[in-house]
Amino acid sequence: MKQSDIDDILINPDQYLRNVLVDNVIFGYHNKELKVLLQQPIALDKWTVTGGYIKKTESIEEAANRIAYSRTGLKNLFFQQFRAFGNPTRSIDGSKNAKNFTKLSGIEVPDDLWIFDYFVSVGFYTLTEFSMVKIEKGVYEAECQWWPIDDLPALMFDHEHIISEALKALRLHIAHYPIGYELLSEKFTLPEIHSLYETILGKPLDDRNFAKRLMATGIIVKLNETKRIGAHRSPFLYRFDKEKYNEGLENGAALAF
Amino acid sequence: MKQSDIDDILINPDQYLRNVLVDNVIFGYHNKELKVLLQQPIALDKWTVTGGYIKKTESIEEAANRIAYSRTGLKNLFFQQFRAFGNPTRSIDGSKNAKNFTKLSGIEVPDDLWIFDYFVSVGFYTLTEFSMVKIEKGVYEAECQWWPIDDLPALMFDHEHIISEALKALRLHIAHYPIGYELLSEKFTLPEIHSLYETILGKPLDDRNFAKRLMATGIIVKLNETKRIGAHRSPFLYRFDKEKYNEGLENGAALAF
Repeated sequence: MKQSDIDDILINPDQYLRNVLVDNVIFGYHNKELKVLLQQPIALDKWTVTGGYIKKTESIEEAANRIAYSRTGLKNLFFQQFRAFGNPTRSIDGSKNAKNFTKLSGIEVPDDLWIFDYFVSVGFYTLTEFSMVKIEKGVYEAECQWWPIDDLPALMFDHEHIISEALKALRLHIAHYPIGYELLSEKFTLPEIHSLYETILGKPLDDRNFAKRLMATGIIVKLNETKRIGAHRSPFLYRFDKEKYNEGLENGAALAF
Repeated sequence: MKQSDIDDILINPDQYLRNVLVDNVIFGYHNKELKVLLQQPIALDKWTVTGGYIKKTESIEEAANRIAYSRTGLKNLFFQQFRAFGNPTRSIDGSKNAKNFTKLSGIEVPDDLWIFDYFVSVGFYTLTEFSMVKIEKGVYEAECQWWPIDDLPALMFDHEHIISEALKALRLHIAHYPIGYELLSEKFTLPEIHSLYETILGKPLDDRNFAKRLMATGIIVKLNETKRIGAHRSPFLYRFDKEKYNEGLENGAALAF
């Protein structure tokens, strides 16, 4: 059986930071749908976001990336930190569940082990194209799958709150920074990028205003090509101006929807 | 001698979370000046923001408030969490300085004590009216004082980076949420609130646009009163509409400067 980080922290506790971990909220977009990646650990009946412990030799950002890869097979995600969560009630559910969990490891652990104390969770979110992802679930997970953000299963600890705070941060972020480069085809129509923004913001956006504001940022360029989507409908295609797009990522490109 | 939280964590290590602490970036505004509160610990030659350890019985928000009060005498501050900082290089400076520091306590501590490991810092910022604050410095601080944000002294660890990230978050925040209620007199002129926004954003704002956008949010109300500031200058006074202001704090009141 493949070793998990739960086993590792029990065997090598001195290699990990105590009382602090990372939780990754992995959002996925595909064709007008926004989902979030959740896992259901074997020993438990509820779902969680994917998270894990931090090694003393790595930064919290490196931990977020290592955990995303080791527990889901996802690589090179652009993680954005949004906030940390920490209060003593986290350990009530946490310690009960952690005890069920550690039983799986087969390692004898005392009831007052420090990993049953309260952990501060540093939350990261990312946004990816979910149709392109091949999920590889972890050793101790019964399931790992995408859930629509408006139809989530029962969640453990404060993970529902963590997801809602991540979504708030993502929505604030896209009012200030460009998105779409890895979420749309290389060439796309205005209705396609319009749907992307509407889906993530969770609200309708006026067509004209949207197009006007987006064009004003300079991050997209109109091509001399159309896409045939019906007998009488051939909207123009657009692509990102990568230089302006990267500038926007660096310095902001306010859309203020 | 009054006991400090450094002493307490050495005497009662089991009462504190390990490897995670809070750092408070306390911004102060007064009459066109933006400052930040820094302390200079007795054993060290550089300055730091004010921070401290988290008790297992309190949330990270409660810790931020307790530390602000115990180390600076500041009460009832509205703290906003902005981000966490964590990487192994934090412990290089950190452990050297922490060792100088623990010598002060007179308590014998081994060289490999866990408090010399790397700590994840959860950053909070707040904004207050600095002319109304009576600072009470901590037991182990040589100095604790306000510094202009564009003229900071030499700072320890990554605290310069922490302050710059806090300022970025504050600036993003005021584009979406109202500020000013505790920073201006009950009645104020448009030039006064205009200066407040310009000072915090660190850039000039067009007079007309500023007034138009601010009035459009409904958070300020024009009074039928003027302020006499010169023989021929009597600008109108304004006050906040507290209900609209609170609504804005809850749901946002986009100014997008």
